[in-house]
Amino acid sequence: MSATATRVGARHQQSFDLQTYLADRTEAVNRALGRFLPRASTRPATIHKAMRYSLFAGGKRLRPALCLAAAEACGGSVDDAMPLACAVECIHTYSLIHDDLPAMDNDDYRRGKLTNHKVFGEGIAILAGDALLTQAFEIAAQCKGWPRYPHQAIVLELSRAAGSGQLIAGQVADLEGEGKKISAHQLRYIHERKTSALLCCSARLGAMSANGTVAQLEALTDFGYHVGLAFQIIDDILDITQTSERLGKTAGKDTQAQKATYPTIVGMEKSKRIARQLTQRAFDALRIFRDKAVALEALAAYLLQRDR
Amino acid sequence: MSATATRVGARHQQSFDLQTYLADRTEAVNRALGRFLPRASTRPATIHKAMRYSLFAGGKRLRPALCLAAAEACGGSVDDAMPLACAVECIHTYSLIHDDLPAMDNDDYRRGKLTNHKVFGEGIAILAGDALLTQAFEIAAQCKGWPRYPHQAIVLELSRAAGSGQLIAGQVADLEGEGKKISAHQLRYIHERKTSALLCCSARLGAMSANGTVAQLEALTDFGYHVGLAFQIIDDILDITQTSERLGKTAGKDTQAQKATYPTIVGMEKSKRIARQLTQRAFDALRIFRDKAVALEALAAYLLQRDR
Repeated sequence: MSATATRVGARHQQSFDLQTYLADRTEAVNRALGRFLPRASTRPATIHKAMRYSLFAGGKRLRPALCLAAAEACGGSVDDAMPLACAVECIHTYSLIHDDLPAMDNDDYRRGKLTNHKVFGEGIAILAGDALLTQAFEIAAQCKGWPRYPHQAIVLELSRAAGSGQLIAGQVADLEGEGKKISAHQLRYIHERKTSALLCCSARLGAMSANGTVAQLEALTDFGYHVGLAFQIIDDILDITQTSERLGKTAGKDTQAQKATYPTIVGMEKSKRIARQLTQRAFDALRIFRDKAVALEALAAYLLQRDR
Repeated sequence: MSATATRVGARHQQSFDLQTYLADRTEAVNRALGRFLPRASTRPATIHKAMRYSLFAGGKRLRPALCLAAAEACGGSVDDAMPLACAVECIHTYSLIHDDLPAMDNDDYRRGKLTNHKVFGEGIAILAGDALLTQAFEIAAQCKGWPRYPHQAIVLELSRAAGSGQLIAGQVADLEGEGKKISAHQLRYIHERKTSALLCCSARLGAMSANGTVAQLEALTDFGYHVGLAFQIIDDILDITQTSERLGKTAGKDTQAQKATYPTIVGMEKSKRIARQLTQRAFDALRIFRDKAVALEALAAYLLQRDR
């Protein structure tokens, strides 16, 4: 994959140091999350330890990075977008904690560490997820609000992306599809909701924090959608081709759980081709930003080429 | 208990038909919830059926009633308060679904019906709770917002009451206290968070929807706090004195789980006395509303006297 992928993303990679950019952003996001979250010693300490355990387990901070980069592409600032970037990361982390539970995917490892319920027990893990979801709205509400996008618009954007029509719908369909023969069409339905919805939302919230225009929001919706689908296909591919050690989570889980994935439905080569095409569509969506979207382009190229 | 309780609430009961009032309010709240929630047929149908199953399982709609009555006490309207009343009920229902899970209280019945996970399985029950929590913010964000309390204030109020410092803190402390000898002080900590926090929040949100003054909000905070504590003590008493059939949930669960309750810590008679004193404090808090708080007074009296 990597040769072709590099070809797609070549011009972006050469002009932009994504690793440094991502490291800087990760550090800023971690600092902000540390401020927004109650301290680990806040009573009852167990829940705050559990929330922080998963939130600071070494996540790639992809969604916050997308949110912040989208804000900049629209002429906004990192500071203004930060509460929204952190809110999205809290929602992402809550969804992972709940997805890993025995009643769902039953995973013991995530990002190379024991999953939340393996450390704190199922009851606390459920509550830690609930608390992070609730915290996301508390953090988002602390944004300053913008003329085109007042607090009401921000909360609606976040709640709809995370709700039973999007993120949760994806998890439900995923859960119900296990062990069943599903079509590529149904699989896309799952990916759109389980992955694209929150990536789209991240980019859109970033644009909102820059008081972005309708055209900018639409472009970033388009970008987030295609990047999200490509991201999930690559995830499916890596589940087959990589070791658990490299992924930091149990590899081969999809095969074990008889979960339908792009490689099992359309084959490995076609999956790679689709991921490349989707990434190209994501690049195309960024045209209106001209040279302001270099970070977003580099992010999309990186997501296609990553090996973990 | 009922003789003394009637004495406390006598003047309120005679002048106000609470049963008719509650029936009217329940109907209005149910209609509004029906409109706010996605239809049961909305894809994926399982999650929307599961959300509606618990939301329409015959709950007393106490929190919405409190919210609407608080709005009226402050000169506001039922229509303006309705999204907030519905949001609080969604949060209450989500907390019950998660509390009933095997990893928490492991309850088979709630309001005389099988609990969510007994019908839909644990995975869907966890997701239905998540979805109702998320939906609560989507619904709350649809309120019109008020000069003193814009959308930002509403979302912060709701997220803090439901968060890891309040509602979830109560459930964590409850979970951690099982089988341990805990003090009356610790028990109050649990009750304040597990029960009072959301009742307080319901009353406060009602006041906010009427653009209430600081004094009105403080009075209703005081009222909600004391009603909440009394409510939980009565709950503990009923768990011992009533049958499962009457309660619609498994009676005697607290004793079985070796859960500390007011009756087990301070004795049955003292528990009843404390509940009456708390209700009196709740009445006292309503003085500034004069004759506008008749529904709130009747509600508090009813909660003290209820036998289920």
